[in-house]
Amino acid sequence: MNVTAALKPQDALAAHLEADMEAVNILIRARMASKHAPRIPEVTAHLVEAGGKRLRPMLTLAAARLCGYQGADHVKLAATVEFIHTATLLHDDVVDESTQRRGRPTANLLWDNKSSVLVGDYLFARSFQLMVETGSLRVLDILANASATIAEGEVLQLTAAQDLKTDEGIYLQVVRGKTAALFSAATEAGGVIAGASEDQVKALFDYGDALGIAFQIADDLLDYSGTAAAIGKNVGDDFRERKVTLPVIKAVAAASEAERAFWVRVIEKGEQHDGDLEQALRLLTTSGALEAARQDAFGWAAKARASLGALPDHPLRGILSDLADYVVSRLN
Amino acid sequence: MNVTAALKPQDALAAHLEADMEAVNILIRARMASKHAPRIPEVTAHLVEAGGKRLRPMLTLAAARLCGYQGADHVKLAATVEFIHTATLLHDDVVDESTQRRGRPTANLLWDNKSSVLVGDYLFARSFQLMVETGSLRVLDILANASATIAEGEVLQLTAAQDLKTDEGIYLQVVRGKTAALFSAATEAGGVIAGASEDQVKALFDYGDALGIAFQIADDLLDYSGTAAAIGKNVGDDFRERKVTLPVIKAVAAASEAERAFWVRVIEKGEQHDGDLEQALRLLTTSGALEAARQDAFGWAAKARASLGALPDHPLRGILSDLADYVVSRLN
Repeated sequence: MNVTAALKPQDALAAHLEADMEAVNILIRARMASKHAPRIPEVTAHLVEAGGKRLRPMLTLAAARLCGYQGADHVKLAATVEFIHTATLLHDDVVDESTQRRGRPTANLLWDNKSSVLVGDYLFARSFQLMVETGSLRVLDILANASATIAEGEVLQLTAAQDLKTDEGIYLQVVRGKTAALFSAATEAGGVIAGASEDQVKALFDYGDALGIAFQIADDLLDYSGTAAAIGKNVGDDFRERKVTLPVIKAVAAASEAERAFWVRVIEKGEQHDGDLEQALRLLTTSGALEAARQDAFGWAAKARASLGALPDHPLRGILSDLADYVVSRLN
Repeated sequence: MNVTAALKPQDALAAHLEADMEAVNILIRARMASKHAPRIPEVTAHLVEAGGKRLRPMLTLAAARLCGYQGADHVKLAATVEFIHTATLLHDDVVDESTQRRGRPTANLLWDNKSSVLVGDYLFARSFQLMVETGSLRVLDILANASATIAEGEVLQLTAAQDLKTDEGIYLQVVRGKTAALFSAATEAGGVIAGASEDQVKALFDYGDALGIAFQIADDLLDYSGTAAAIGKNVGDDFRERKVTLPVIKAVAAASEAERAFWVRVIEKGEQHDGDLEQALRLLTTSGALEAARQDAFGWAAKARASLGALPDHPLRGILSDLADYVVSRLN
């Protein structure tokens, strides 16, 4: 009997990669130190030790191990990926003026925006030093491109939010920036460091990309159809923040003139009254937008699973396949 | 007669490097574009085309040419250095809540803090892509380390400002982060890309480091002893912002008990009244702090000049030597 069979896929990953993740955690703690500026480890520890799932570094480790890697550089890459993720969270919380993250007050609230901006910059620089240590120009190229896609997606989101002209193409670009670019860089870099074949490297990229997109579409759907307990935030937050996510894009594309006027008022003009969230939910349901977005999420999860076919037979491959199912299982 | 003899050193540099700088400007314009997010080139152009002196990219080009470089990668490195500089300016203006830069409204004022944070991140990522294109791991290592020193120095400045325990060692660390780390990375990377000898690479690092420190000490001195016309800001700005710079550190170290109480009140407690700036200037003068800091600046300029001895005889070497004199000539 498989001891990990009863575990959630991310817990099964953590169990399989326990020794590697321990090395990653030691490296993260060592590299977030600063001889001169104690504010840096204070801010970083607040976020890094808040108990995130560490999904991104586990994807790098899993990709490398799945391709038979026996070296130690995948640990550096995994820490790199977690530092990039932590840096983007620090900057995101400043940009979104957030006050809560992972159930705790954000760094920008506990310290100030200045500390979040500068400590984020420091973590980017530290991630950069770590990846240089691997000596792989190809890995550096992957992570440089991912960094540009992330930042571009974030800027695009600034201008695309609250704009009903945002279409599915722009949405996908934003989603790649927010989520999928770092997932795909994490898996692709793991394959490259392991010396995997081009087919396998491409499969790992495709897996991370599709997994990230499925994950983000599910997140955006749950904002309208989940429960507060399941999603860790309030239903309708995106609506109140006037974010143009996939369900809204699909509903607007199918809207009558009167329905369109509703969306213009609540999203573009931001004039929201009692009952508007309920009306939005009705339109999202009757137009078929929620169901269509749900099918898209399942489609991306299937694409992620299918990409794994090019990879070696390995217990980790099964766990990654389960993970793709799991990110959309919240939609059932 | 040398045609550049009558020019300021940075103008002589620009004249010598005109064709290279034209290539750098073309590359900067091409790489600050974004297919998807027009906000990015808007914000970047506002800053990049505001007519900065482009001293840092010229240092990279000069270092490479001085060491006989005939390739084209120094142009990529120079653009990299300018992108890193622009990114730090965008983030600095958010951190300092600045409203003016180079005589124009700052990006955070014209757009918002969000755009400045995210476009800064984008420029960091673009700089990272550019340097990966050079294919030199050693250059990547130099620039990764410089990025970490810059960010660490900025965080250190957050906590060291307004704190009279800040000593000359911490001040130097902050100054390296603010100014000297990018100067020394600019010159060192230029030498490395040119395939210069280890002695020459070390000399180029030392030149950039000492030049940057001389430049920043001069800046900090002029805040107390310059004229508004000469320094482009108001005399006493650092005093009003309670920044602990080198003149204040030296005056505090030599202070009587009553004088120390004055510094605690105006800098640490921030209780400033009419006449306090004049009293500060009296203490800075009578304690010899201004003169001692001035001697330090000249000492660093001399160190910069002396480092050039290890480099090939070349017209650019003479200009770099003049530049070291020039950055402290404002103190005469």
